Amino acid sequence: MNDLYSLMHSTPSKKDFIDTTDFDQSEILDIVKTAVATREFLKSGGTLDTLYHKNLAMLFEQKSTRTRISFEVAMSQLGGHALNLAPGAIQLGAHETIEDTAQVFGRMCDLVMARVDRHESVQALAKYAQVPVINGMSDYNHPTQEMGDIITILDNLPEDRDWNTVKVVFVGDCTQVCASLMMITTKLGMNFVHYGPEHKLLSEDFQKIGRANAEKYGGSVTVTSDRDCLKGADFVYTDVWYGLYDKETPKEVYMKDFYPTFQVNDDLMNATENENVKFMHCLPANRNEEVTDSVMDGKNSICFDQAENRLTAQRGLVLYFGGVAQATLDIIKSQKEGKN
Amino acid sequence: MNDLYSLMHSTPSKKDFIDTTDFDQSEILDIVKTAVATREFLKSGGTLDTLYHKNLAMLFEQKSTRTRISFEVAMSQLGGHALNLAPGAIQLGAHETIEDTAQVFGRMCDLVMARVDRHESVQALAKYAQVPVINGMSDYNHPTQEMGDIITILDNLPEDRDWNTVKVVFVGDCTQVCASLMMITTKLGMNFVHYGPEHKLLSEDFQKIGRANAEKYGGSVTVTSDRDCLKGADFVYTDVWYGLYDKETPKEVYMKDFYPTFQVNDDLMNATENENVKFMHCLPANRNEEVTDSVMDGKNSICFDQAENRLTAQRGLVLYFGGVAQATLDIIKSQKEGKN
Amino acid sequence: MNDLYSLMHSTPSKKDFIDTTDFDQSEILDIVKTAVATREFLKSGGTLDTLYHKNLAMLFEQKSTRTRISFEVAMSQLGGHALNLAPGAIQLGAHETIEDTAQVFGRMCDLVMARVDRHESVQALAKYAQVPVINGMSDYNHPTQEMGDIITILDNLPEDRDWNTVKVVFVGDCTQVCASLMMITTKLGMNFVHYGPEHKLLSEDFQKIGRANAEKYGGSVTVTSDRDCLKGADFVYTDVWYGLYDKETPKEVYMKDFYPTFQVNDDLMNATENENVKFMHCLPANRNEEVTDSVMDGKNSICFDQAENRLTAQRGLVLYFGGVAQATLDIIKSQKEGKN
Repeated sequence: MNDLYSLMHSTPSKKDFIDTTDFDQSEILDIVKTAVATREFLKSGGTLDTLYHKNLAMLFEQKSTRTRISFEVAMSQLGGHALNLAPGAIQLGAHETIEDTAQVFGRMCDLVMARVDRHESVQALAKYAQVPVINGMSDYNHPTQEMGDIITILDNLPEDRDWNTVKVVFVGDCTQVCASLMMITTKLGMNFVHYGPEHKLLSEDFQKIGRANAEKYGGSVTVTSDRDCLKGADFVYTDVWYGLYDKETPKEVYMKDFYPTFQVNDDLMNATENENVKFMHCLPANRNEEVTDSVMDGKNSICFDQAENRLTAQRGLVLYFGGVAQATLDIIKSQKEGKN
Repeated sequence: MNDLYSLMHSTPSKKDFIDTTDFDQSEILDIVKTAVATREFLKSGGTLDTLYHKNLAMLFEQKSTRTRISFEVAMSQLGGHALNLAPGAIQLGAHETIEDTAQVFGRMCDLVMARVDRHESVQALAKYAQVPVINGMSDYNHPTQEMGDIITILDNLPEDRDWNTVKVVFVGDCTQVCASLMMITTKLGMNFVHYGPEHKLLSEDFQKIGRANAEKYGGSVTVTSDRDCLKGADFVYTDVWYGLYDKETPKEVYMKDFYPTFQVNDDLMNATENENVKFMHCLPANRNEEVTDSVMDGKNSICFDQAENRLTAQRGLVLYFGGVAQATLDIIKSQKEGKN
Repeated sequence: MNDLYSLMHSTPSKKDFIDTTDFDQSEILDIVKTAVATREFLKSGGTLDTLYHKNLAMLFEQKSTRTRISFEVAMSQLGGHALNLAPGAIQLGAHETIEDTAQVFGRMCDLVMARVDRHESVQALAKYAQVPVINGMSDYNHPTQEMGDIITILDNLPEDRDWNTVKVVFVGDCTQVCASLMMITTKLGMNFVHYGPEHKLLSEDFQKIGRANAEKYGGSVTVTSDRDCLKGADFVYTDVWYGLYDKETPKEVYMKDFYPTFQVNDDLMNATENENVKFMHCLPANRNEEVTDSVMDGKNSICFDQAENRLTAQRGLVLYFGGVAQATLDIIKSQKEGKN
């Protein structure tokens, strides 16, 4: 019996992963739980095939290294397959409407992941495809990055501290990654700070989302150019300054905006007055611009664990949105019991 | 034991799928039967691995969405793997002769599928590769589309009617899809009509093929600019007007040729005087040029079922030309019996 | 239990395949043995899954047909998966340092294969990735080609002759393939000759490597423009004259260098005075430039067997560097015994 097939092809209300704001805390934690349990099981030598014969179409309007590799490996490790539709292979809305493309994908594949130029495109794909659609980054947000980041934060909680007490400071430009970090940390009731130059701070629209989360789940949102905000940070996170894609900012412009005040260097890390503060970066990093080698390669850097957790997160996401999260957790549980 | 290997690597007379004209009706029906039985088995929750460890090389000289995804998913769903050689990855006849490329592919892969600029290229691949070659569209024909289309037509036969009584009208430009539709419908003894402007009708050479089929299997071929031909149509099929690839026609030229007479709109559908007439399109569609939204999204449109049947057909083709059609049907039969 | 995972992710001293000079003869023969035993087992109908759920990242800075297809098929045939990162997908050292890219790949994949512009890039990948890295050709050498070539030579030894008595003559330009052939033939104690125009002979640096091998394992290295060197050759090998990539030589220049003296034609083959001399070419061939049709399609040509042995070699390499060569040989042995 192949219940996934019937599930995917008949369920009237399928779930998409477009924006973590569409999910409440307990759903996010279910995905995290699936992801982490699967990681631990595979690391201990277990094997899983709950996505056997399932196909994920990965549609890229923009280049990607980490997102592409992590999804492709995740599917392979779970017995499935990912199709790589590289930039240029399909232009959404060019030779046919997104609606028509979505319907065709939904007829042939079990899951769709799309990295798009415009957020509206991935929303339209989700609306018209009959199968679950995962947002692999848009110009608005980067929710799969959020999942890897929150797993990394939970992996690295300060000793004896509950997650909803930690302070996470994003330093620099208000990129999608910055906005996304705010959305996921506040979803878990953490204290989020964006520290950047005044004209590069998170917009009021984004702050509203964070404040709504804080109201519901505790925690706080601070957006400031005041360096004092670093004090007591448990996590310092940064991203490149040059922007994305065709909207890249010239070096002389962004250096003037951010350098040297917002470079994550030893000075800035010391300003946290926390010797255990962790350093995070979504990568790729422009070394010795937004972060110095000393920090990135230092003992408090967890940015490569964070990269590995992209894979952890994608496994959780394809299992969850593939409809087999519970089935997978049941297998893991029964195999663990079998061992004991 | 792995009989497929020895079969593929030792058989002196391998079969290729270059042109449906090379096959008689019973062979075409064998492929259809394999495809449909596999579809039904998978939909009922069955799993198949008769192409386990088998590799299909997909060679594209031109971009493709539906052909690529459908073959890649088909191989994955049957336990095998498809290699995507995107346009530019290999230029047939550029750095080495097609003969040499074919021999290398044949040494490493179990099946080859090629979408080519010139029909001669796929013929040469078939001649020199030691493994079966499938034509994924050339400038002459599109036989894998034919298989998906004929399955869709058979799925949607008018109640209580034999397939060899139906009337299929292709409206518009004499593309490869038009020619291919003629070849496959007449192969099954159906009545085929090409309705288009006089200077855009199927060539005499193509008509000859259709008439030869009609003579052998019954049915008929009509090529006309007379709108009366629509009367009694069971299926109305259209394709884009702009041509393909680098031979795209400018919009002002093709609109003058086809618009408004040959647009498939409610008026044209009404001219069939058949309220159950089905609408088909190979996609992508240029909405509100060759077909209106009202028809494409209307209750008689089966064009997305048709898209899904590209996958149905590819499964049939890779099983049949992979030499495991009968083995697959045997597994399906035995598993069904096991259930009862 | 999945011992490979723990092996790969915890072993302090992983092995890379960057240059055969890093390996002694017995290690090379272990890889050959694994490759050949696996080939024979698969040809006899056996199936293997010792790389199940394992992922090889293939990173191409330059186009590739044979290397890409052979690795992708090898992984698929052994139960694993290969990710194709086509030229342009990742630019080593462009958006992030090679060190950072290597770490990310190492966190997500089990093996990395890279075809690079500069040898230093694949060395850096090997240094920083936590998983084994395989050199899929650099501007310095082509060690996976070496493995396929040495398997082909061993498959085609003259009757009753030990491998360390054979004479292998490379004719033409001192490409990476020429240098690589010297390295692997002398590693096995064979007699290697490079026959080419004086200003296109293997450099003194390369010759030193070959002479060191000859001192250790027997055999010899000769580099000459004297046609007498062909006498007694068991294998004649050539490669294209136009160079590689963006360093392609204009036709009028290379023809003046090599034509007609260094064309492998019937005359040249006759100059070996060995009617059983075999012809080899790494392909693609520029027919009727460096080799005539008469030789390439003649009865002594083994160049397509050689192409097929790229696949043979890659299977051996991914099994060996994936840490499952012995496990695979054990399975093969036990299944053979089961049959008897």
